[in-house]
Amino acid sequence: MSEAGNPAIEFHFDFISPFGFFASLRIDDLAARHGLQADWRSMLVGVSILKVMGMKAIPATPLKGDYVRREAERYCRRHGISLAREFVSPPSNPLVAGRTFHWTRRHHPDKAKDVARALFSAYWLEGRDIAELSLALDIAQACGLDRQALAAAHESGEAADLLRAAVDASLAKGVFGSPYFIVPEAVSINRPCKGTGEPFFGVDKMELMEEWIAARGW
Amino acid sequence: MSEAGNPAIEFHFDFISPFGFFASLRIDDLAARHGLQADWRSMLVGVSILKVMGMKAIPATPLKGDYVRREAERYCRRHGISLAREFVSPPSNPLVAGRTFHWTRRHHPDKAKDVARALFSAYWLEGRDIAELSLALDIAQACGLDRQALAAAHESGEAADLLRAAVDASLAKGVFGSPYFIVPEAVSINRPCKGTGEPFFGVDKMELMEEWIAARGW
Repeated sequence: MSEAGNPAIEFHFDFISPFGFFASLRIDDLAARHGLQADWRSMLVGVSILKVMGMKAIPATPLKGDYVRREAERYCRRHGISLAREFVSPPSNPLVAGRTFHWTRRHHPDKAKDVARALFSAYWLEGRDIAELSLALDIAQACGLDRQALAAAHESGEAADLLRAAVDASLAKGVFGSPYFIVPEAVSINRPCKGTGEPFFGVDKMELMEEWIAARGW
Repeated sequence: MSEAGNPAIEFHFDFISPFGFFASLRIDDLAARHGLQADWRSMLVGVSILKVMGMKAIPATPLKGDYVRREAERYCRRHGISLAREFVSPPSNPLVAGRTFHWTRRHHPDKAKDVARALFSAYWLEGRDIAELSLALDIAQACGLDRQALAAAHESGEAADLLRAAVDASLAKGVFGSPYFIVPEAVSINRPCKGTGEPFFGVDKMELMEEWIAARGW
Protein backbone atom coordinates (compact mmCIF):
# COMPACT_ATOMS: atom_id res chain seq x y z
CA MET A 1 0.00 0.00 0.00
CA SER A 2 1.15 3.49 -0.75
CA GLU A 3 0.84 6.44 1.55
CA ALA A 4 -2.34 7.39 -0.27
CA GLY A 5 -3.94 4.09 0.64
CA ASN A 6 -4.28 2.88 -2.92
CA PRO A 7 -2.74 -0.44 -3.88
CA ALA A 8 0.71 -0.08 -5.41
CA ILE A 9 2.44 -1.78 -8.30
CA GLU A 10 5.93 -2.67 -7.16
CA PHE A 11 8.47 -1.42 -9.70
CA HIS A 12 11.89 -3.02 -9.27
CA PHE A 13 14.82 -1.63 -11.25
CA ASP A 14 18.56 -1.24 -11.38
CA PHE A 15 19.94 2.19 -12.24
CA ILE A 16 22.41 0.65 -14.68
CA SER A 17 19.65 -1.16 -16.61
CA PRO A 18 18.52 0.73 -19.72
CA PHE A 19 15.20 -1.10 -19.75
CA GLY A 20 14.73 -0.16 -16.10
CA PHE A 21 15.25 3.45 -17.15
CA PHE A 22 12.77 3.12 -19.99
CA ALA A 23 10.18 1.69 -17.60
CA SER A 24 10.76 4.50 -15.12
CA LEU A 25 9.50 6.94 -17.73
CA ARG A 26 6.12 5.16 -18.01
CA ILE A 27 5.25 3.31 -14.82
CA ASP A 28 3.65 6.16 -12.88
CA ASP A 29 1.36 7.12 -15.75
CA LEU A 30 0.41 3.49 -16.23
CA ALA A 31 -0.42 3.08 -12.55
CA ALA A 32 -2.35 6.36 -12.43
CA ARG A 33 -4.54 5.33 -15.36
CA HIS A 34 -5.90 2.60 -13.10
CA GLY A 35 -6.03 4.51 -9.83
CA LEU A 36 -2.92 2.78 -8.53
CA GLN A 37 0.39 3.91 -7.11
CA ALA A 38 3.84 2.82 -8.23
CA ASP A 39 6.21 1.75 -5.47
CA TRP A 40 9.79 2.15 -6.76
CA ARG A 41 12.49 -0.16 -5.41
CA SER A 42 16.01 -0.39 -6.75
CA MET A 43 17.75 -3.78 -6.89
CA LEU A 44 21.06 -5.04 -8.26
CA VAL A 45 21.21 -7.19 -11.37
CA GLY A 46 24.84 -7.83 -10.50
CA VAL A 47 23.58 -9.84 -7.55
CA SER A 48 20.49 -11.46 -9.07
CA ILE A 49 21.79 -12.28 -12.56
CA LEU A 50 25.48 -12.79 -11.96
CA LYS A 51 25.53 -14.32 -8.48
CA VAL A 52 22.16 -15.96 -7.85
CA MET A 53 21.34 -17.06 -11.39
CA GLY A 54 24.94 -17.72 -12.41
CA MET A 55 24.54 -15.93 -15.74
CA LYS A 56 26.74 -13.48 -17.56
CA ALA A 57 25.83 -9.84 -17.94
CA ILE A 58 23.59 -9.48 -20.98
CA PRO A 59 25.99 -7.35 -23.07
CA ALA A 60 28.65 -10.05 -22.56
CA THR A 61 26.32 -12.93 -23.48
CA PRO A 62 26.98 -14.29 -26.99
CA LEU A 63 24.14 -13.70 -29.48
CA LYS A 64 21.81 -12.21 -26.88
CA GLY A 65 24.07 -9.24 -26.21
CA ASP A 66 23.86 -8.08 -29.82
CA TYR A 67 20.14 -8.66 -29.97
CA VAL A 68 19.37 -6.76 -26.78
CA ARG A 69 21.49 -3.82 -27.93
CA ARG A 70 19.40 -3.62 -31.11
CA GLU A 71 16.24 -3.93 -29.07
CA ALA A 72 17.29 -1.02 -26.85
CA GLU A 73 18.10 1.12 -29.88
CA ARG A 74 14.77 0.22 -31.47
CA TYR A 75 12.96 1.18 -28.26
CA CYS A 76 14.80 4.51 -28.12
CA ARG A 77 13.94 5.37 -31.71
CA ARG A 78 10.30 4.57 -31.15
CA HIS A 79 9.97 6.47 -27.90
CA GLY A 80 12.15 9.42 -28.86
CA ILE A 81 14.83 8.75 -26.27
CA SER A 82 18.43 9.79 -26.86
CA LEU A 83 20.84 7.97 -24.57
CA ALA A 84 24.15 9.60 -23.68
CA ARG A 85 25.64 6.19 -22.91
CA GLU A 86 26.22 3.14 -25.07
CA PHE A 87 24.36 0.02 -24.08
CA VAL A 88 27.61 -1.93 -24.28
CA SER A 89 29.82 0.53 -22.44
CA PRO A 90 31.05 -0.69 -19.03
CA PRO A 91 28.42 0.15 -16.41
CA SER A 92 29.02 2.34 -13.42
CA ASN A 93 29.19 0.61 -10.08
CA PRO A 94 25.55 0.98 -8.98
CA LEU A 95 26.09 0.72 -5.21
CA VAL A 96 26.26 4.44 -4.42
CA ALA A 97 23.08 5.12 -6.40
CA GLY A 98 21.22 2.20 -4.83
CA ARG A 99 22.33 3.17 -1.33
CA THR A 100 21.32 6.78 -1.92
CA PHE A 101 17.92 5.71 -3.19
CA HIS A 102 17.14 3.35 -0.32
CA TRP A 103 18.31 5.83 2.31
CA THR A 104 15.98 8.38 0.75
CA ARG A 105 13.14 5.87 0.53
CA ARG A 106 13.50 5.08 4.23
CA HIS A 107 13.88 8.59 5.58
CA HIS A 108 12.16 10.78 2.98
CA PRO A 109 9.83 8.50 1.01
CA ASP A 110 8.13 11.45 -0.66
CA LYS A 111 11.48 12.32 -2.30
CA ALA A 112 12.49 8.80 -3.36
CA LYS A 113 11.17 8.99 -6.91
CA ASP A 114 12.66 12.43 -7.47
CA VAL A 115 16.07 11.11 -6.45
CA ALA A 116 15.66 7.99 -8.59
CA ARG A 117 14.61 9.99 -11.64
CA ALA A 118 17.54 12.35 -11.21
CA LEU A 119 19.98 9.44 -10.90
CA PHE A 120 18.52 7.73 -13.96
CA SER A 121 18.68 10.96 -15.93
CA ALA A 122 22.27 11.72 -14.90
CA TYR A 123 23.35 8.25 -15.93
CA TRP A 124 21.39 7.62 -19.13
CA LEU A 125 20.67 11.09 -20.51
CA GLU A 126 23.79 12.95 -19.34
CA GLY A 127 26.29 10.08 -19.39
CA ARG A 128 27.57 10.85 -15.90
CA ASP A 129 29.18 8.34 -13.54
CA ILE A 130 26.68 7.54 -10.78
CA ALA A 131 29.39 5.66 -8.88
CA GLU A 132 30.62 9.06 -7.66
CA LEU A 133 29.38 9.90 -4.20
CA SER A 134 29.66 13.63 -4.87
CA LEU A 135 27.16 13.33 -7.73
CA ALA A 136 24.72 11.42 -5.54
CA LEU A 137 25.04 14.06 -2.84
CA ASP A 138 24.51 16.85 -5.37
CA ILE A 139 21.38 15.13 -6.65
CA ALA A 140 20.01 14.56 -3.17
CA GLN A 141 20.66 18.17 -2.25
CA ALA A 142 18.94 19.40 -5.39
CA CYS A 143 15.95 17.27 -4.39
CA GLY A 144 15.79 19.08 -1.05
CA LEU A 145 17.51 16.45 1.10
CA ASP A 146 20.11 17.01 3.78
CA ARG A 147 23.47 16.48 2.09
CA GLN A 148 25.37 15.96 5.34
CA ALA A 149 22.91 13.42 6.68
CA LEU A 150 23.15 11.40 3.48
CA ALA A 151 26.96 11.61 3.48
CA ALA A 152 26.97 10.37 7.05
CA ALA A 153 24.69 7.45 6.12
CA HIS A 154 27.11 6.45 3.38
CA GLU A 155 30.05 6.80 5.78
CA SER A 156 28.45 4.84 8.62
CA GLY A 157 27.25 1.99 6.44
CA GLU A 158 23.58 2.67 7.15
CA ALA A 159 22.85 3.29 3.46
CA ALA A 160 24.72 0.14 2.48
CA ASP A 161 22.72 -1.88 5.02
CA LEU A 162 19.45 -0.51 3.64
CA LEU A 163 20.40 -1.45 0.08
CA ARG A 164 21.54 -4.91 1.13
CA ALA A 165 18.26 -5.56 2.95
CA ALA A 166 16.30 -4.29 -0.05
CA VAL A 167 18.17 -6.55 -2.45
CA ASP A 168 17.64 -9.55 -0.17
CA ALA A 169 13.95 -8.73 0.03
CA SER A 170 13.68 -8.46 -3.74
CA LEU A 171 15.40 -11.81 -4.24
CA ALA A 172 13.04 -13.39 -1.71
CA LYS A 173 10.17 -12.22 -3.94
CA GLY A 174 11.77 -13.74 -7.01
CA VAL A 175 12.84 -10.45 -8.60
CA PHE A 176 15.66 -11.29 -10.97
CA GLY A 177 15.82 -8.60 -13.65
CA SER A 178 15.13 -4.96 -14.40
CA PRO A 179 12.44 -3.85 -14.78
CA TYR A 180 10.34 -6.30 -12.79
CA PHE A 181 6.81 -5.45 -11.69
CA ILE A 182 4.52 -7.03 -9.13
CA VAL A 183 0.80 -6.28 -9.38
CA PRO A 184 -0.79 -6.62 -5.94
CA GLU A 185 -3.33 -9.27 -5.06
CA ALA A 186 -5.88 -6.57 -4.29
CA VAL A 187 -5.93 -5.80 -8.03
CA SER A 188 -5.71 -9.37 -9.32
CA ILE A 189 -9.07 -10.42 -7.92
CA ASN A 190 -9.76 -12.85 -10.75
CA ARG A 191 -6.56 -14.73 -9.92
CA PRO A 192 -6.42 -14.57 -6.15
CA CYS A 193 -4.87 -17.88 -5.26
CA LYS A 194 -1.16 -17.25 -5.53
CA GLY A 195 -0.54 -15.13 -2.45
CA THR A 196 2.36 -13.33 -4.09
CA GLY A 197 0.99 -10.71 -6.43
CA GLU A 198 1.43 -11.18 -10.17
CA PRO A 199 4.93 -10.70 -11.60
CA PHE A 200 5.77 -9.14 -14.95
CA PHE A 201 9.37 -9.01 -16.18
CA GLY A 202 10.60 -6.61 -18.83
CA VAL A 203 9.60 -3.25 -20.24
CA ASP A 204 7.87 -5.09 -23.07
CA LYS A 205 5.46 -6.62 -20.56
CA MET A 206 4.00 -3.27 -19.59
CA GLU A 207 1.18 -3.49 -22.12
CA LEU A 208 0.30 -6.98 -20.94
CA MET A 209 0.46 -5.85 -17.33
CA GLU A 210 -1.93 -3.04 -18.11
CA GLU A 211 -4.33 -5.53 -19.69
CA TRP A 212 -4.01 -7.69 -16.59
CA ILE A 213 -4.86 -4.73 -14.38
CA ALA A 214 -7.82 -3.71 -16.53
CA ALA A 215 -9.13 -7.29 -16.51
CA ARG A 216 -8.33 -7.76 -12.80
CA GLY A 217 -6.30 -10.80 -13.83
CA TRP A 218 -7.24 -14.03 -15.57
CA MET B 1 11.16 -15.18 -50.37
CA SER B 2 8.49 -17.82 -50.20
CA GLU B 3 7.28 -19.91 -53.06
CA ALA B 4 4.45 -17.45 -53.57
CA GLY B 5 6.91 -14.64 -54.14
CA ASN B 6 5.83 -12.63 -51.11
CA PRO B 7 8.44 -11.68 -48.53
CA ALA B 8 8.54 -14.10 -45.60
CA ILE B 9 8.93 -13.60 -41.87
CA GLU B 10 11.42 -16.17 -40.64
CA PHE B 11 9.97 -18.04 -37.68
CA HIS B 12 12.62 -19.93 -35.70
CA PHE B 13 11.51 -22.34 -33.01
CA ASP B 14 12.43 -25.42 -31.02
CA PHE B 15 9.81 -28.13 -30.67
CA ILE B 16 10.54 -28.43 -26.94
CA SER B 17 9.96 -24.70 -26.35
CA PRO B 18 6.46 -23.93 -25.05
CA PHE B 19 6.72 -20.34 -26.25
CA GLY B 20 7.76 -21.61 -29.66
CA PHE B 21 4.59 -23.71 -29.67
CA PHE B 22 2.48 -20.74 -28.64
CA ALA B 23 3.97 -18.67 -31.47
CA SER B 24 3.31 -21.44 -33.98
CA LEU B 25 -0.41 -21.03 -33.34
CA ARG B 26 -0.34 -17.35 -34.37
CA ILE B 27 2.49 -16.62 -36.79
CA ASP B 28 0.77 -17.55 -40.05
CA ASP B 29 -2.29 -15.45 -39.28
CA LEU B 30 -0.07 -12.53 -38.31
CA ALA B 31 1.92 -12.80 -41.55
CA ALA B 32 -1.21 -13.17 -43.66
CA ARG B 33 -2.73 -10.00 -42.20
CA HIS B 34 0.11 -8.12 -43.88
CA GLY B 35 0.33 -10.08 -47.11
CA LEU B 36 3.43 -11.93 -45.94
CA GLN B 37 4.45 -15.55 -45.65
CA ALA B 38 5.89 -17.26 -42.60
CA ASP B 39 9.00 -19.35 -43.17
CA TRP B 40 9.24 -21.94 -40.38
CA ARG B 41 12.68 -23.16 -39.32
CA SER B 42 13.37 -25.34 -36.30
CA MET B 43 16.51 -24.76 -34.24
CA LEU B 44 17.90 -26.20 -31.00
CA VAL B 45 17.95 -24.16 -27.80
CA GLY B 46 20.16 -26.87 -26.37
CA VAL B 47 22.85 -25.68 -28.76
CA SER B 48 22.23 -21.92 -28.70
CA ILE B 49 21.45 -21.40 -25.01
CA LEU B 50 23.44 -24.16 -23.36
CA LYS B 51 26.50 -24.41 -25.61
CA VAL B 52 26.93 -21.08 -27.41
CA MET B 53 25.63 -18.76 -24.71
CA GLY B 54 26.84 -20.87 -21.78
CA MET B 55 23.55 -20.53 -19.90
CA LYS B 56 21.46 -23.04 -18.04
CA ALA B 57 18.12 -24.26 -19.34
CA ILE B 58 15.45 -21.80 -18.24
CA PRO B 59 13.52 -24.21 -15.97
CA ALA B 60 16.80 -24.91 -14.14
CA THR B 61 17.73 -21.22 -13.76
CA PRO B 62 17.14 -19.89 -10.23
CA LEU B 63 14.38 -17.26 -9.96
CA LYS B 64 13.81 -17.09 -13.72
CA GLY B 65 12.65 -20.70 -13.93
CA ASP B 66 9.75 -20.08 -11.54
CA TYR B 67 8.85 -16.83 -13.24
CA VAL B 68 8.79 -18.27 -16.75
CA ARG B 69 6.65 -21.20 -15.59
CA ARG B 70 4.09 -18.71 -14.27
CA GLU B 71 4.31 -16.72 -17.47
CA ALA B 72 3.61 -19.83 -19.56
CA GLU B 73 0.62 -20.71 -17.37
CA ARG B 74 -0.68 -17.16 -17.62
CA TYR B 75 -0.34 -17.28 -21.41
CA CYS B 76 -2.20 -20.60 -21.56
CA ARG B 77 -5.07 -19.31 -19.43
CA ARG B 78 -5.41 -16.23 -21.58
CA HIS B 79 -5.27 -18.02 -24.90
CA GLY B 80 -7.32 -21.04 -23.88
CA ILE B 81 -4.49 -23.54 -24.30
CA SER B 82 -4.38 -26.73 -22.24
CA LEU B 83 -0.92 -28.27 -22.20
CA ALA B 84 -0.56 -32.01 -21.64
CA ARG B 85 2.99 -31.49 -20.40
CA GLU B 86 4.41 -29.58 -17.46
CA PHE B 87 6.72 -26.72 -18.30
CA VAL B 88 9.23 -28.08 -15.80
CA SER B 89 9.09 -31.73 -16.85
CA PRO B 90 12.26 -33.02 -18.52
CA PRO B 91 12.10 -32.27 -22.23
CA SER B 92 12.19 -34.87 -24.93
CA ASN B 93 15.36 -35.07 -26.95
CA PRO B 94 14.42 -32.79 -29.88
CA LEU B 95 16.79 -34.22 -32.49
CA VAL B 96 14.40 -36.66 -34.17
CA ALA B 97 11.73 -33.96 -34.49
CA GLY B 98 14.17 -31.38 -35.84
CA ARG B 99 15.67 -33.85 -38.30
CA THR B 100 12.21 -34.89 -39.48
CA PHE B 101 11.20 -31.28 -39.95
CA HIS B 102 14.27 -30.25 -41.92
CA TRP B 103 14.16 -33.34 -44.12
CA THR B 104 10.55 -32.46 -44.91
CA ARG B 105 11.39 -28.83 -45.47
CA ARG B 106 14.10 -29.80 -47.97
CA HIS B 107 12.22 -32.44 -49.90
CA HIS B 108 8.55 -31.54 -49.44
CA PRO B 109 8.46 -27.87 -48.43
CA ASP B 110 4.71 -27.69 -48.91
CA LYS B 111 4.32 -30.26 -46.11
CA ALA B 112 6.82 -28.76 -43.67
CA LYS B 113 4.34 -26.75 -41.62
CA ASP B 114 1.90 -29.66 -41.44
CA VAL B 115 4.64 -31.86 -40.03
CA ALA B 116 5.77 -29.17 -37.60
CA ARG B 117 2.24 -28.52 -36.37
CA ALA B 118 1.66 -32.24 -35.86
CA LEU B 119 4.93 -32.61 -33.92
CA PHE B 120 4.11 -29.58 -31.75
CA SER B 121 0.62 -30.91 -31.10
CA ALA B 122 1.82 -34.40 -30.24
CA TYR B 123 4.32 -32.99 -27.78
CA TRP B 124 2.43 -30.15 -26.11
CA LEU B 125 -1.22 -31.11 -26.47
CA GLU B 126 -0.96 -34.91 -26.30
CA GLY B 127 2.09 -35.23 -24.07
CA ARG B 128 3.80 -37.72 -26.36
CA ASP B 129 7.54 -38.31 -26.60
CA ILE B 130 8.76 -36.77 -29.85
CA ALA B 131 12.16 -38.40 -29.34
CA GLU B 132 10.61 -41.60 -30.68
CA LEU B 133 11.36 -42.18 -34.34
CA SER B 134 8.23 -44.25 -34.79
CA LEU B 135 6.07 -41.29 -33.78
CA ALA B 136 7.87 -39.00 -36.23
CA LEU B 137 7.38 -41.54 -38.99
CA ASP B 138 3.69 -41.90 -38.12
CA ILE B 139 3.25 -38.16 -38.26
CA ALA B 140 5.07 -37.83 -41.57
CA GLN B 141 3.01 -40.62 -43.04
CA ALA B 142 -0.20 -39.02 -41.84
CA CYS B 143 0.93 -35.83 -43.59
CA GLY B 144 1.26 -37.73 -46.85
CA LEU B 145 5.02 -38.25 -46.84
CA ASP B 146 6.92 -41.41 -47.75
CA ARG B 147 7.59 -43.17 -44.47
CA GLN B 148 10.35 -45.35 -45.87
CA ALA B 149 12.19 -42.45 -47.47
CA LEU B 150 12.13 -40.53 -44.17
CA ALA B 151 13.29 -43.58 -42.21
CA ALA B 152 16.15 -43.99 -44.66
CA ALA B 153 17.13 -40.32 -44.24
CA HIS B 154 17.29 -40.81 -40.47
CA GLU B 155 19.29 -44.01 -40.93
CA SER B 156 21.77 -42.55 -43.41
CA GLY B 157 22.42 -39.37 -41.45
CA GLU B 158 21.00 -37.13 -44.18
CA ALA B 159 18.31 -35.79 -41.85
CA ALA B 160 20.87 -35.18 -39.12
CA ASP B 161 23.08 -33.28 -41.56
CA LEU B 162 20.17 -31.10 -42.63
CA LEU B 163 19.31 -30.22 -39.03
CA ARG B 164 22.95 -29.50 -38.20
CA ALA B 165 23.29 -27.17 -41.18
CA ALA B 166 20.04 -25.43 -40.24
CA VAL B 167 21.16 -24.89 -36.66
CA ASP B 168 24.51 -23.52 -37.83
CA ALA B 169 22.71 -21.17 -40.21
CA SER B 170 20.39 -19.96 -37.45
CA LEU B 171 23.32 -19.27 -35.12
CA ALA B 172 25.06 -17.34 -37.88
CA LYS B 173 21.99 -15.10 -38.02
CA GLY B 174 22.08 -14.55 -34.26
CA VAL B 175 19.06 -16.73 -33.46
CA PHE B 176 19.41 -17.71 -29.81
CA GLY B 177 15.97 -18.51 -28.45
CA SER B 178 12.52 -19.77 -29.33
CA PRO B 179 10.53 -18.20 -30.81
CA TYR B 180 12.75 -15.82 -32.75
CA PHE B 181 11.46 -13.91 -35.75
CA ILE B 182 13.26 -12.03 -38.51
CA VAL B 183 11.27 -9.51 -40.53
CA PRO B 184 12.83 -9.13 -43.98
CA GLU B 185 14.46 -5.97 -45.21
CA ALA B 186 11.90 -5.72 -48.00
CA VAL B 187 9.31 -4.96 -45.33
CA SER B 188 11.45 -2.76 -43.09
CA ILE B 189 11.84 0.00 -45.64
CA ASN B 190 11.98 2.75 -43.02
CA ARG B 191 14.97 1.07 -41.40
CA PRO B 192 16.92 -0.27 -44.36
CA CYS B 193 20.50 0.05 -43.22
CA LYS B 194 21.16 -3.07 -41.21
CA GLY B 195 21.38 -5.66 -43.95
CA THR B 196 20.09 -8.39 -41.69
CA GLY B 197 16.35 -8.07 -41.38
CA GLU B 198 14.84 -7.02 -38.08
CA PRO B 199 14.93 -9.56 -35.23
CA PHE B 200 12.22 -10.04 -32.61
CA PHE B 201 12.71 -12.52 -29.77
CA GLY B 202 9.88 -14.01 -27.76
CA VAL B 203 6.19 -14.67 -28.19
CA ASP B 204 5.50 -11.44 -26.32
CA LYS B 205 7.18 -9.50 -29.11
CA MET B 206 4.60 -10.53 -31.68
CA GLU B 207 2.45 -7.45 -31.12
CA LEU B 208 5.48 -5.19 -31.45
CA MET B 209 6.58 -7.05 -34.58
CA GLU B 210 3.17 -6.51 -36.08
CA GLU B 211 3.42 -2.79 -35.34
CA TRP B 212 6.87 -2.79 -36.98
CA ILE B 213 5.46 -4.46 -40.07
CA ALA B 214 2.50 -2.08 -40.25
CA ALA B 215 4.83 0.92 -39.87
CA ARG B 216 7.46 -0.56 -42.21
CA GLY B 217 9.94 -0.13 -39.39
CA TRP B 218 11.22 2.91 -37.54
